[in-house]
Amino acid sequence: MDNTKALPLVELTEQFAKLPGIGKKSAERLAYHVMGMTDSEVKAFCDALNKAHNNVHCCRVCQNLTENELCPICADNLRDHNTICVVETPKDITAFERTREYKGVYHVLHGLISPIDNVTPDKLKIKELLARIGDDTNEVIMATNPTVEGEATAMYISKLLKPLGVRVTRLAFGLPVGGTLEYADEITLFKALENRNEI
Amino acid sequence: MDNTKALPLVELTEQFAKLPGIGKKSAERLAYHVMGMTDSEVKAFCDALNKAHNNVHCCRVCQNLTENELCPICADNLRDHNTICVVETPKDITAFERTREYKGVYHVLHGLISPIDNVTPDKLKIKELLARIGDDTNEVIMATNPTVEGEATAMYISKLLKPLGVRVTRLAFGLPVGGTLEYADEITLFKALENRNEI
Repeated sequence: MDNTKALPLVELTEQFAKLPGIGKKSAERLAYHVMGMTDSEVKAFCDALNKAHNNVHCCRVCQNLTENELCPICADNLRDHNTICVVETPKDITAFERTREYKGVYHVLHGLISPIDNVTPDKLKIKELLARIGDDTNEVIMATNPTVEGEATAMYISKLLKPLGVRVTRLAFGLPVGGTLEYADEITLFKALENRNEI
Repeated sequence: MDNTKALPLVELTEQFAKLPGIGKKSAERLAYHVMGMTDSEVKAFCDALNKAHNNVHCCRVCQNLTENELCPICADNLRDHNTICVVETPKDITAFERTREYKGVYHVLHGLISPIDNVTPDKLKIKELLARIGDDTNEVIMATNPTVEGEATAMYISKLLKPLGVRVTRLAFGLPVGGTLEYADEITLFKALENRNEI
């Protein structure tokens, strides 16, 4: 440890360095930045940290993060509660909401099945999803990422849902809009060809 | 604002985004990371923030950041208190200490003269430096960055110190060790030629 630096500064640097994507140099710069902040700025930052950590929890129904018992989407009666879009993280909901097209509800798994990282199906919110499926459920859209883990999770859950007689769909794979054929990888191109549509 | 996200999460994201070098996407990722932290981790982070902000202040003598009245370097009797190395920021002290060669003390200006950023000499710790200069002072080393502002500040301070009869020196400019001539810019190469030494 560097004994020319004040201990609280070293500790703060270590705390910042624990955050994802923040290296030692960035952590040091952030710690020095805090030195230049006013009392009220530091208080606002701490308050925001504590408030987010203490007041935000999973929605009782869809497991999205919320301060209330139900998230705004589950509490919205104008949405189609019989179409459930299954996503990995709450961030994915933000992405879908940006399209302004999807009017159903969501279910957040909080992870993907990944035996290598010791994430087994029981660690995800899968039983909460199964508990939501009722006679009224029209469709469950598997909207996990197009990765090995995302595919495996989508397959695993669809196998659990099929016996319940519910329609299970998967997001379409194909060329990204605005992309060029030249830069498309072979699997994407193969999927785009396979899933080609009548025009 | 995105009303599908819990308000405390949005607020925390905004707080993270205020930090230097943290964009909107990184801030969001950090906010979600906090959601996954344990209570004690969040407490440790907040404590570190408050402790650093409340307990760390400028050393009475050299203006380095410290929790005590004197920083460890100024409090160290084994160091040469008559050689003062003038630097821009406390981080520069860490860089010098890594060399393990310098045995003098430091003086932190907390900035460089930069009229364009509205930093005038009175906003720097220059009068504190002048107050330290005594009959015993052997040498003041101007160790500001080799930039326009660093040079201007070094020149400004040296003009104030010269009438006091103190020896003022400037860090050597030349080729960085391990660098190649090919990639040296013309000013560095000119300085390296100008300051060439007998071998």
